Order: sequence, then C-alpha cells, then structure tokens
Amino acid sequence: VNSDKSKHAAVVNNLTSLSPAAERLRYILSEDDDMPTPTLFTEMDTLQREGEELEWKESARWVKFEEKVEEGGERWSKPHVSTLSLHSLFELRTCLQTGTVLLDLDGYSLPQIVERQIEEGMISPDLREKISFVLLRKHRHQTKKPIHRSFADIGKSSSSTSHAQSRSMNDIADTPSTDQLKNKFMKKIPRDAEASNVLVGEVDFLNKPFVAFVRLAQATTLGGLTEVPVPTRFLFILLGPQGKAKSYNEIGRAIATLMVDDLFSDVAYKARDREDLIAGIDEFLDEVIVLPPGEWDPKIRIEPPKKVPSAEKRKSVFSLNELGQMNGTAGGGGGLAEDEEMPVQHEFCGGLYLDIKRKLPWFPSDFYEGFHIQSISAVLFIYLGCITNAITFGGLLGDATDNYQGVMESFLGTALAGSVFCFFGGQPLIILSSTGPILIFEKLLFEFSKSNSIDYMELRLWIGMHSCLQCFILVATDASYIIKYMTRFTEEGFSSLISFIFISDAIKKMVGAFKYYPINTDFKPDYVTTYKCESPMPDNSSSVSGLNVTALDWSQLSKKECVKYGGSLVGKSCKFVPDLALMSFILFFGTYSMTVSLKKFKFSRYFPTKVGKLSVYICVLLNQVTQCFCKTHNELFHHSGLKTSIKTPTRPGRGWLVMPFGKNPWWVYLASFVPALLVTILIFMDQQISAVIVNRKENKLKKGCGYHLDLFWVGVLMATCSFLGLPWYVAATVISIAHIDSLKMESESSAPGEQPQFLGVREQRVTGILVFVLTGVSIFLAPVLKFIPMPVLYGVFLYMGVASLSGIQFWDRIKLYMMPSKHQPDYTYLRHVPLRRVHLFTLIQIICLAVLWVLKSTFLAIIFPVMILGLMVVRKMLDMVFSQHDLAWLDDLLPEKEKKKKDDDKKKGKEKEKEKEKKKPKPDDSEEEVRNSSFCCPLQD
Amino acid sequence: VNSDKSKHAAVVNNLTSLSPAAERLRYILSEDDDMPTPTLFTEMDTLQREGEELEWKESARWVKFEEKVEEGGERWSKPHVSTLSLHSLFELRTCLQTGTVLLDLDGYSLPQIVERQIEEGMISPDLREKISFVLLRKHRHQTKKPIHRSFADIGKSSSSTSHAQSRSMNDIADTPSTDQLKNKFMKKIPRDAEASNVLVGEVDFLNKPFVAFVRLAQATTLGGLTEVPVPTRFLFILLGPQGKAKSYNEIGRAIATLMVDDLFSDVAYKARDREDLIAGIDEFLDEVIVLPPGEWDPKIRIEPPKKVPSAEKRKSVFSLNELGQMNGTAGGGGGLAEDEEMPVQHEFCGGLYLDIKRKLPWFPSDFYEGFHIQSISAVLFIYLGCITNAITFGGLLGDATDNYQGVMESFLGTALAGSVFCFFGGQPLIILSSTGPILIFEKLLFEFSKSNSIDYMELRLWIGMHSCLQCFILVATDASYIIKYMTRFTEEGFSSLISFIFISDAIKKMVGAFKYYPINTDFKPDYVTTYKCESPMPDNSSSVSGLNVTALDWSQLSKKECVKYGGSLVGKSCKFVPDLALMSFILFFGTYSMTVSLKKFKFSRYFPTKVGKLSVYICVLLNQVTQCFCKTHNELFHHSGLKTSIKTPTRPGRGWLVMPFGKNPWWVYLASFVPALLVTILIFMDQQISAVIVNRKENKLKKGCGYHLDLFWVGVLMATCSFLGLPWYVAATVISIAHIDSLKMESESSAPGEQPQFLGVREQRVTGILVFVLTGVSIFLAPVLKFIPMPVLYGVFLYMGVASLSGIQFWDRIKLYMMPSKHQPDYTYLRHVPLRRVHLFTLIQIICLAVLWVLKSTFLAIIFPVMILGLMVVRKMLDMVFSQHDLAWLDDLLPEKEKKKKDDDKKKGKEKEKEKEKKKPKPDDSEEEVRNSSFCCPLQD
Repeated sequence: VNSDKSKHAAVVNNLTSLSPAAERLRYILSEDDDMPTPTLFTEMDTLQREGEELEWKESARWVKFEEKVEEGGERWSKPHVSTLSLHSLFELRTCLQTGTVLLDLDGYSLPQIVERQIEEGMISPDLREKISFVLLRKHRHQTKKPIHRSFADIGKSSSSTSHAQSRSMNDIADTPSTDQLKNKFMKKIPRDAEASNVLVGEVDFLNKPFVAFVRLAQATTLGGLTEVPVPTRFLFILLGPQGKAKSYNEIGRAIATLMVDDLFSDVAYKARDREDLIAGIDEFLDEVIVLPPGEWDPKIRIEPPKKVPSAEKRKSVFSLNELGQMNGTAGGGGGLAEDEEMPVQHEFCGGLYLDIKRKLPWFPSDFYEGFHIQSISAVLFIYLGCITNAITFGGLLGDATDNYQGVMESFLGTALAGSVFCFFGGQPLIILSSTGPILIFEKLLFEFSKSNSIDYMELRLWIGMHSCLQCFILVATDASYIIKYMTRFTEEGFSSLISFIFISDAIKKMVGAFKYYPINTDFKPDYVTTYKCESPMPDNSSSVSGLNVTALDWSQLSKKECVKYGGSLVGKSCKFVPDLALMSFILFFGTYSMTVSLKKFKFSRYFPTKVGKLSVYICVLLNQVTQCFCKTHNELFHHSGLKTSIKTPTRPGRGWLVMPFGKNPWWVYLASFVPALLVTILIFMDQQISAVIVNRKENKLKKGCGYHLDLFWVGVLMATCSFLGLPWYVAATVISIAHIDSLKMESESSAPGEQPQFLGVREQRVTGILVFVLTGVSIFLAPVLKFIPMPVLYGVFLYMGVASLSGIQFWDRIKLYMMPSKHQPDYTYLRHVPLRRVHLFTLIQIICLAVLWVLKSTFLAIIFPVMILGLMVVRKMLDMVFSQHDLAWLDDLLPEKEKKKKDDDKKKGKEKEKEKEKKKPKPDDSEEEVRNSSFCCPLQD
Repeated sequence: VNSDKSKHAAVVNNLTSLSPAAERLRYILSEDDDMPTPTLFTEMDTLQREGEELEWKESARWVKFEEKVEEGGERWSKPHVSTLSLHSLFELRTCLQTGTVLLDLDGYSLPQIVERQIEEGMISPDLREKISFVLLRKHRHQTKKPIHRSFADIGKSSSSTSHAQSRSMNDIADTPSTDQLKNKFMKKIPRDAEASNVLVGEVDFLNKPFVAFVRLAQATTLGGLTEVPVPTRFLFILLGPQGKAKSYNEIGRAIATLMVDDLFSDVAYKARDREDLIAGIDEFLDEVIVLPPGEWDPKIRIEPPKKVPSAEKRKSVFSLNELGQMNGTAGGGGGLAEDEEMPVQHEFCGGLYLDIKRKLPWFPSDFYEGFHIQSISAVLFIYLGCITNAITFGGLLGDATDNYQGVMESFLGTALAGSVFCFFGGQPLIILSSTGPILIFEKLLFEFSKSNSIDYMELRLWIGMHSCLQCFILVATDASYIIKYMTRFTEEGFSSLISFIFISDAIKKMVGAFKYYPINTDFKPDYVTTYKCESPMPDNSSSVSGLNVTALDWSQLSKKECVKYGGSLVGKSCKFVPDLALMSFILFFGTYSMTVSLKKFKFSRYFPTKVGKLSVYICVLLNQVTQCFCKTHNELFHHSGLKTSIKTPTRPGRGWLVMPFGKNPWWVYLASFVPALLVTILIFMDQQISAVIVNRKENKLKKGCGYHLDLFWVGVLMATCSFLGLPWYVAATVISIAHIDSLKMESESSAPGEQPQFLGVREQRVTGILVFVLTGVSIFLAPVLKFIPMPVLYGVFLYMGVASLSGIQFWDRIKLYMMPSKHQPDYTYLRHVPLRRVHLFTLIQIICLAVLWVLKSTFLAIIFPVMILGLMVVRKMLDMVFSQHDLAWLDDLLPEKEKKKKDDDKKKGKEKEKEKEKKKPKPDDSEEEVRNSSFCCPLQD
C-alpha cells in the first residue's frame, strides 16, 4: 500500500517541476514536430464462439468517442464518452510492462510476435500453433444490415478454416473486401487516418495472459481486420485464460481509449521503448477526470460534450517553446489580423479606400461561392420576408402619402436598392428594406408639405439629394468609427425595439382585421329573411342625383347601390362581414405557431434532410392549402394597391421620374438641408447598427466588413430613389439576421458524437441579388402572389419578431426576473456578477426601451435616431454605476477598449489588477468566448 | 514509477479475493451494523484575506452533490457531481498518511491538535500561537442575501480579534447564531445529520503543510463554524505554505467528496486508525469512474444523474451475510408481499373475501388521507373530464335511444355510479364512465327493440339484471384471474384504441361543427339586401295547413316560419351560419394547444407553486374569457338536452323507475340472457383492463387492488342503473389514468440535485367521491355550466386522448419507423432487441389495432370485448414468432410468468440458461425497472 506514496511523491513533484514521466514525454514529443501524426481509428474485436467456430467479433469502435455494438440490438450505440475504471487502466499499465512491445515492425506477421514471446520465455513453445490459430480467425464486423450468414460467407469461413495453419494474417484476405469499401462509415474518418486494432479474448489453453503491443513501421491494410479500408498501424492483442472476459474487455477499452487520445497517440507514434508508453499512460492518468462512485452510475452513457479542451493546449506543456505561439493564434478566432482590418486613417476617404481594397479581392469568390444547395432555401426564406416587408411597408406608405408611394413603388424600390447594394455593397449579407422610422418621417413630411402647399415629391427629392451628400461627407470623414461606442447595451436596445415593432405591427394588423371585418355576435339564422333595402322616404317622391328614386325597385338593389341612392339598410347583420376576421386569425396564428413548433420539433430527426430550414415556407404553403380548401372570401387576398401593371406608378398622374425644379420656391431647395440632416442621422444609425449586428464576431465572417462602403451605397441609392420617387432604404436588422442564419455553415465530416463546428457564414452576393431580382419579378407575378393571404404574411412577421427577440441576452435577463434564483439557468455572467447587479442592468435597459417606445409613438419619432445616440450616452453613464468587471460580463466590452481604459485608469492600479486577474479565465470559460467582442473589425484610435 | 506495479498487483488480486484494503474495511464495516451512521453535511471554508483581516469564507458545500459559491456571482451554483483529479486524491492520501489523525477526540479544542503536531515533531513549537490564531478566525457563510458587513458584524469580528488568543474554538460563538437558525437550507439536510468541516488555506509562516483529520467522540455544535445549526463530527484542516492555493483547494474538495460518499463516511465513522482511513480511500479509488481528458472538459459541471447506484449494494460487498437479504428486498418495489396479495383460492367468493379483507383496514385512511391541497386540483381536473364525458356520451346516447337516456340521465347516472363505486369499490382511483362499446350496444339494442316492437326500457332492465347476475358468478368463481394473461401487448392495444376513439370523437365533433354551421365562401357584403322570403306559388292562391297563405306578409316572416309555410328562401347566404364554425375551431384548437404548451413549458420554473397541474383548468378559463369577450353566438353553448329541471327524465313520458314486467312477452325475460352475456364480457374486459392499467406496478400503489370487489360493485350498479333507466358504467381508462397522474406524490426534502423520488399515489376515496358529488350537483348548475362552450370541452377531449397515447411505449415504437437508426433515442429495448424485431412487433400491434378499429366501426362493435380476448390469443401466438428474450424486453413479461415458463420449457435447458443470464442485468439497467411488471398483484396459479 505504501508504494503509492512514491507515486504521490512523483505527482507532488510535478507541481514544481516536471515528473520523470513528463520529462520523457517532453523529450520524445518535442523531437521532430514538423510531421503531424495521423488520426487514429480504433476498432476492438473480441473472440467469440459462433456455433462450433471461433471468430473475432467487432464490439466497439472509436474515432474520437466510443461506439459500442449493442449485443442484442445488433446495432451501434450512440457515440459516448468512454467511462473507464481506474482498475482497468492500472491493469493495462501492467500488461504493457510485462507483455511484448514491438515497435516499428517491418512487414508484420503474426507468428513473429508469438516467437518473440517464446524467446522471452513468457509462453511455452507448444502454444505457438494454438495462439496463431486463434489470431487468424475470421473477423466479423458490425454492419448496419442485420447479421445473416450468406452462402458466400459460409464458404469463406470454411475456407479460412482450411487455411488455419497459414502463417501470415494477410492470408485472411489480401485486398479490402467489398463490405469494407461499401461502408459508409468511411466518410466519418479523416482521409489520412490510420487504424489501431485491439483484439481481446479468452482461450482455454493459456494459464497466463498473452499480451502484445505492436507498432508497424508502415501502416498496412490487413485485409478484413478493420471494418473500413484504413491501413492498420497499431495492434494490441490480449489473450488470457478463461473466466475473466469482462476484465479483458475493460483493458481493451482502456487501450482503445488511450489510442484515440490526442496526447497518447502522439506518444504511441513516437515512443522509442516500452517505458515511453508507460510514461504516456502515467501522463494520461495524471490528467483524467474522476467521478465519485456514489454520485454517478457507471452505466450511464455520457453524451459527448459540446467542446473538449484542445489537444494543442495539452501538448503545449511538453513543448514549452510552442506555448507562446499557441496562445497567440488561439485567441484569434479565424478573422483577419487586427491592423489590416480597419485602422483609423483620418485621411480623405481613407476608410472607403480601405473598404474597397479589402473587399475587391473577394469579389469573384462572392459569386462562385454562392452556388450551393443551401442558397436555395436561404433565397426562398428571405424572399418571403422581403415581399412581406415590401407589401406591408408599401401599404403603409401608400396610406401615409396618399399613394404617392405605394406597394408598386415599394416592390420596385426594394428590388432596385437591394440588388444594387448586394452587388456593390461592403457587406452583401445585409438586406435593405423600408423601416419604421423612415415611414414615420415620410408621413410627417407629407403632412407638412400638404398643409404648406409645397410639392411633396420635389421636396423629398431635395432632401434625398442633401442626405446623399451628407452621407458622402460621413464616408469621406470616416465617421463610421463612431460605431465602436456601440456595445451590447445599445445593440440590444435597438434590435429589441425593432423586434417589438415587428410584433406590435403584426398584432395591430390582426386587431385591425377584427375591426375591419366585425363579427356579428348577435347573429340569428332566423333573421336572414329580414334583410332589405328601403327607400329613404317612401312617402315623398324626390330625385337623387338625377335618378327617379320612386322608379327604383329597392329590393333589387345591392348594398352599395342602396347606400348610394340614399336607401337605408334593414336587418341587423348588414354591417358585419362573417368569418373573415376569424379566418384571418386562424391563418395568422396558425402560421406563427406552426413555424414555431416546426422549428422546435427537430424535423431533421425524422427526415435526415434539412427540411427544418424550410419550415417557414412549409407553413406558408400549408396554410395556403388550408386556405384554398376552405375557399373563404377573396377579400383576404386584397393586397391593397398591388397592381398588375407596372407601366404607371400607383398614384395616377405622377410619372416615373421626379423633376428637381419648377414646383417649389427656391428657398425650399436650401431649407431641405435641415430635414435631410435628420434623415441622414436616421439612416446612418439604422444602417450602421444593423451592420454591427451582422458583422458580429460570433458570425465568424471571413471577408471583413465595409461600413464606409455600405454607407456610400446607401447614399447613392438614397438619391436614386428620390429621383425615381421610390421609398428610401436602409439595412433591416431582423431580415439581415435571418439571412445570416440561413447561410450558416457547419462542419460535416466530424467524428461521431463530435459537435459539428460552426465554420462561418456562406458570404456571397448571389443570394441577396437573387432575392431582390425575385422581388422585382414579383411585380409581374402579382396574379400568383395574391394567392398568399395577408394574415399568413403577418404570421411570418410575428415569427420574425419573436425569433429575433428570443436570441438576445436582454430577453434572457428579463426572464430571470420571473425565476426564483435556484431555478435560474447557469449563465456565465450569473457566475461572475451578483444577481441584483444583473437585475439593475436589465431594469435600466427596460426603462430606456420604454422611453424609446413612447417617443417612437409620438411625433418625436422623427428624432428617433438621435435617441439611439442618447442610448449610447446612457451606456456611458453606466460606467459610473457598474464596475468595469460587471460590465465586461454584461455588456461584452471589447478587449481593445479595456486595454485603453486600463491605461487611463492607471491610478486605480491595485483594483484593476484584481479585475484583470478575474477576467483572465474568461476566454476559456465556455461558449461565451465567441460573444466576447461584437465586431469583426477591432477598432482603435 | 514501478511502485504502481505493486498497487496493480493488489488490484488484480482483488479480482479473485479481497485486497488487504478491502479486508480491513470488511472487518470494520461488519463490526456492529445495528447502528446506522448519520448523514454527513460537509462544508468547505477557505482562508481569505478580507481587507486587513483573515477570515474563513465558505467556498462549497455537499449534502450529496457539490454546490460551489460562485465568487463573483455571490450565489450558490447548481448542485453538480464533484469532478476530481486523480492527482488531488493521491495528494489527499499522502496528507492522511503524514498528517495528524485524531479519532474520537473528547471535548474538542483546537490547540490540542497543534500540541499533538508539535509532539510528533511535525511543526516547531513557535508556530503554535500563529496556527491557533489562524484557526480561530471568524467564519463567513454564503447566504442568499448579498454579503454586507453590518455594524454588528464588524463589532463581532473585532471582538474575535481581541480574543484571538483564546484556546477553544467554542469561543467564536457558543450558541447557534440567528443566521444559522434562519437558514432555510436546513430543510434540505436530514434531521439526524452531522457536519464535517473542511478548512483549507495558505499562510505565510509555514514552510510545510499542517494537516489534521479529527473525529469528535460526540458531535458538537461549534458556534458559527457551520452554515447550518448541525453538530460537527469531523474536521479536516489543511494549512500550507503560500503559492499552492489551487492545489489545497482540490485536496479539500477531495476529502469533502469522500466525506459524503456513503461508503467512506461509514469508514470514517468506524475507523480505528489511520490505516482504516487510507483503506477507505483505496477502496474509493478502486470504484471511481474515470473520464479520459481528451473526451471531456473538467470545467463542465455534470448534472446529478437521475439515479445513482445504491449505497447498500456497494456496502454489501463488505458484509457478505447481508447480500442475500439485500437482493430480496431490492426487487420488491414497496408493494405488499406476494402471497398476501392475490392468491388463487378456487373457493366460492374466495377472491371477493380476500379483496374485502385486504381493503377494509385501509378504509378509514382512505378518507383522512384525502384531505390534502393536491386533492383540490385533482378534483377540479377530473371533474372537468367527467362532465365532458357525461355531456358527450349523454348527447350521443340521447341521439341513439331517442332520448330514453339523455344528458340528464347521463349526469345522474355518472354521479350515482361513480360515487358508490368510489365509496365501496376495490380500487377507488378508478373513475367510472360511459364508454364507446356500451354506447354502440345501446344503439343496436334500441334499433332492435324498435323494429321488433319490444319495449326498450324493459328489455334493457332484464339484460341489466342478467348481466348483474353473471358478474356475480364471475366474482364468485374468481374469474378475474384471467387478467394475468394480459401483457403490455394487450394493454397497449386496448388503451391506444380508447385514445384513438377519444381523438377521433373530438375531431369528428369539430368536422361536425363545420358541417352544421357551414361557412359561406362566396359571401359578398353587397348581397345582404337581397335576402327575402317568397311565397311558393305567388300566382296561385291556396291554403297550407289551414292558413291563408296569400294573407301572409312574406317579407315579415322569419326563416323558420318561412320554411314552415312552404315559402322559399331567396339569397345565397341563407343556409350559412357565419363565424360559428371558425369560432368553434379556434376554441377547440386553442384549448388543446394551450393545454399542451402549458404542460411542456415548465410553468413551475417561473412560479414555484404547482400551477402547472391546473393548466387544463387555466386553459378552459382563459378560453371562456376569450369567449365571453367575443360574445359570439349563443349557439355554441347549446348543450343539447341539458335541462335545467331534474324533476323529469329527458324524454317526456318515462318515469324515474323502470318496471320489470308488463310490457314485453315472458320469453323476452329469458332470452335477454344472450345479449346480457355480451354485455357482461364487454363490461368485464373493459373494467378489468382499465383496472390492470391503474394497478400497474409503476404506480407504486400500496393499498393493493380489488379486482373481484370492483366487478361486484360494477354488477350491482348495472342492475341499479337498469332499474332507474340510467346508462351503464364501467371504468374509463383515460380519465382514471389522469386521476392517478394528478395524485402522484414526490419526495420533497431531498438533497440538492437529487431527483425527487416518486413515492406513490395518494390513494384515497375523497377525490373520487367529490368529483361525482360535484357531477351530481352540476345538474343544478346547468345555467352556469352552459357557459362552457362545447368546443372547449372537445379540446379537453383531444388533449386527454393525445396525452394518454403519448405515454405508451407502442407510440414510441411507431415513431421509430420514421427515424433513421442513428437518430433513434437510446431506449433500453433497442439495446437488446434487433430493430427489425422491434419493428415487426410494432407492425403486428398496428395491424391488430387497425382490425379492431375497422370492426369497431361496423355492427360487429358489439362483439368488441370478444375481440380483446382475440388480442390475447394473438399475443399467445407471438410466442412462436419471437424469442422469450425479445418478448421480455418488448412485452414486459412478469417475472412469475417467466419462472413458470421456465419450468415448462425445461427441455430447452441450454437456450433458456443463456436467456436468463442476459436478463439478469435488467433490473439494474435503468428506469425500465419499474415497468418490469404491469401488476401490483403478482398472479400465480
């Protein structure tokens, strides 16, 4: 027992300097690092008696995690973490200490191992034949198909029996079998992988275990040994006396787990002798995680974690010179180098120049990378959002401006602005759209010009031109750098406001439907006969609008005519429109809830294809089918103002081109500078905040951002749209996020059980352009388009609002208010910031949002963008209320900013030191890491 | 390094005989087993510098799982499994080998430990004062409230500074502080618990660690040492030189985890010397579960598992004499002993006698145990189900029997039969109701008697009497034993059939609403003036039914009158009822989906009270509010046949008592024996299958079943209802299951992180009786009741059907068809039975169900109960298709049955042996254990 003391001594020693085992590893691992070791695929076969014959049956396999053959189920288990017993690891260690270790064996042949053991006196020579016989038994692999012995199989196995005395394992089969080649599992294994085979079994002729660990000089395909046609590099053989099958099995699992361990597999490849392998095990033992037996059931299969510590980090302990290097690249996150990205130029158009310089090389790839199956679903999904937006805002604009801008203009403008922006813009993933603030501005502008007898379209043109100019000035002066003052606080405030607008718009529309098509709650079927139209003054003959009223057959008139000729409607239900409101509600809510539940319900579990992504589309189609089935009133389809001809604008009498001069006095041309300033701020804020959200680091964008270039094109489009009398366009947060979500790429060929990694977004211009071309074409499709009921579109609206709201931390924090603390989820910031501080932060956000909401609903809406600036001021003041440590967790400060802050606050020295110390473990802490910084462009000044 | 070899030798040795460590443990653990050791609560405090002062700050605690103090968050983490490093365990082992171990210290005083260390020469005498000073620092505990130093606190700590030289730790505070007493955490700790305190810290005056492990002879409350007022029994102190705080912390966590380990805490209580403790650690190490470092991130907090291996099992290794005993009770599951329960008597009324004998002692407790807050929600929920049933089946019966039995009779009958059964029945958790098969029987019977001019009510009375008699015969001959042939196959077939009936009924009703209130899809508001009623033959004056038609003012007639007088309705929408169908749909589907989502959405997360259970009720209320708000047509409330007076039956002209003689010829009285036989089989099957489902072992019923007594009362009620002309009643599966679900009890005061255990069902008669009394009273409440719209009730119906369907394995297996095998959940039976066998089994079930469904829809419905018998025959035939091993997993064979089978099939010896071997691990395998057997009454013959 006290022998462990020395082990302990070695272990404790490790705290200050490296243990002997670690020294050994350090030596062999740092030897030649230029050749990376291949990935190992491990297969474990156990010896089993099938009828009269012995055979090796596959019992488990490892790419990274363990997959077990379910004995009775004849199937592969789900990949799981290999839970080992300490016992089996120590037993394995002894096995390697006492058994045969053959490293770099040339031209492997099994009897060679047996000979060696005989030489070493470990087994008696008379067992040679028996052991060879056992080792050469046929291997049976677990395939997806049920195990059945075909005639061919039986033939094979009988032939292998007759060749039982052959000396080389290659005799089993020289070439990969068709079963091996057909195995679909192959695509889960990296191309350069090599195999390690673990063979364990109990036999009746041995009285002590026969153990061999073999490394081949060259990886060789040993016929049917491995399930897949991967060349074998390592072999571990354990044959032992009967009665301990379970123990042998555990030892086999232990070595198999070790072989797929990143560190140990390196050791196995580079080991010079037995002691190196033992050192590898000791090092592994030193790092294992131990679960107490009373708190965990070893039978539970642990699902693979989302993230495991990187092998590099573990290896770096043994090659100190690499350590620094590692840390450098690990923090990066795959983006561009900092300085290259967006330095402050303070030169004329410096930012714009750099944006173009950065984006130009990517321009060709922006097109050819767009041709991918994923793009189709993205295009369909975003197209739906865009036409919804175009129809809705078009309708609203039509109301607000007396049809100077209607649905027709909205479609045209969206198509024009969107496709131009996606083609030339700095960030083609951004989707342009009309937005709420713009709508409100137009409304106020129209009312102003009407009451002051100023020509609206001309005034608007001048505002557009001024605004375009101002945008250019902002571009030229690199004003976009202001966005670095936007933190999560501002972003969340803005994006949840937009989400709320989406949600409230959708609901308002529904309530509107109930008002527009009122429900008759007192309807009595009995009364249907009592409707009629009555003459207004049946006694008094008079003529209305030149018609002889008395000559009319009042009972033959339709409702419209009746009202027209001054008749009165008799009958209680006349003013009600039955079914429409409820049908709208069903379609609206049906679309919403079906979309939500389809997203939740993992559709992909049942159908392996990625149908899930199309869920919104499915819902719309389903509802449309329902709708067609019910054949309710055509009124639902009346997209007001959606004309089928594009020859003329919505409002009769205005042309397609607005002339800049002639209708207004000269001073209006100059004075329009002032409202233009408001529009510019509005557009600038709206555009750049959306761009910041799109360019977030967590999206892992590789092609960089282009804030200046974006703004330049928005300015150009502003002027163009003004000339054509089309609405103005800026980046739409919600749809842009949806666009990015639908273009996310994940790694496909990962080891079973490994989480597919988020690789980034398919950055290209094709989807955006297609969406807007389709939107443009939709004008011609009006007869088809009008079969989509409006309530379905509102349902999509509601879903978009709710979906984008539920993704933000602010919303999670609001939910915390309603949860008793012990039920709260384990958010990282809750571990580091006291709950009451979190609540205070959330409360301030809520108040700000409420103020914004109220202001938005009043005429002050026009200075809405200025209020976003106000939000940034509020955030600045929070520095006085919260410690930098708390804000780092709640508001995701940029590392760059912190650095700068630290320089400023050097007087507070001691306190800061402490904070920094606390912050250090943060990048490792969990997936929060990605969120750490909101920009892909680190900003410095 | 090779020192591990000896460790390994010891370990391998362990396989055949016990290791020296185990021998030691066996000796001390088996010493005196009559005194169970108390549960240990462990608190770990670390030494921290708060401003200028040193203090002990609580950093983690263990009841069973670890709860950590989140440094920055000032909160407790969620309970999690303590993941340790092997390293820290070895270091701890060394600490115990080299440090001071004081066992059974009388009247603990700290300096005594220090003295001992000085005596042993481990520390120099000049450190005495310093160590004592550190050990006597104030303890600061993590409370729910934010940490603030009140003036009182400051005063206390300064006074403790002045007393720094005092010798006894009791000086810190003699009595439990108010903070301690107020701590709500106390209720999570078992009453007899004792505390173990772990104190670790780094100090600047030591150059080698100071380690002490102390066990007090008597557990003593040491003032503010522990967070809760629990007496301390163990103390572990580790003070060491600076710079290794993390390592000390890990060692502290290791000892704390060990102290709460069931086995090690026993060892700690009974250890005679240091070596015993070391042996305890070695034994712990031998059982630990190891996770490979490359497959798991030690930073992930592992959630406590649903089930951990029982401590008894682990301990039993060390006290072999207890092993057999353990296995005996472990398999039980808390029920009554086998023989007592339901032996075959084969005596006249033997089963009934035993049922009464079994249930009578529980009779008083059946009442006083019913008064619990949980009963209220159960009563409300089941009441809703019952009146839904009563109204629906009442309506259907009214249709089928020309109102001889209507809603009024349905209510009265339900109330009468239900309350009598719940008062006297064998299993008061069963809810009686009308069922589908009975309804169909009544329908056919009514048609038969009508076409053959036989008095329906009198014939029915005779059938009822015959049937009652036959039930008595079945009771007297203990025929209920037939139910032992019912396995999961039969049960699932029956209960999914019932679920399908519920679902299809609900949907049929909705489709009916669409047909009954058709939607006008061509509605044009313009046309409302064109309705009128026209005289059938305006030119030809004639008189219809004595009225002068020409004298009528046709345009003044209501729809009804118009049709009555032969007028024709002009106007397209006359035959449509607007809004009603859609409103019904919204209410129906709204109720269903709200109930489903409220159940899913863990309501309790936001509101700790058990609101979730009332979700159905909330939905109904909400929908009612919606409904009132919309004030749609009163038609929705027209519960056809729900009269407000109970003085007379629904059908005018029949009295409350049916006379047995006078209306039919004498042979009818005898011939009614034949239909009665059908009814008896029907009732018997329906009743007993539901009873089997209710009495399932997984419900952990403690008061036993009463199949014979149940049947007796069903027979009595059969006759009674026949006399009163009320419908017949049998057990309703779905509502009975809902009843049980709403009465489930779970353990409340479990250790943090431990799953609340399902303790059983609140078995009593109060809820059932109350439900039926309420149902009876509801007749008077008709004016109130009619405010519940019918579609809402159908929604509840749909929910009940779907909910009871989703709980059964059959449904899970159907879903497997649609999943690619790698996405399939890890069901236990999938591990043991090949997928194609599972699919085959499911397919057979589906076919059986389809056949039953088709038959049910034809006139053969009347022999429906016979078909359930057919299901049992099909199941019997499956023995030829499937191996017993497969059936054991898929069909949950009873252990008793298997035993019997094994006797029968002894010839197959070898094969059976193998199966048995495979089956052995089953009870341990997972939660499936509970499902192992379907009855609480093991049946033998």
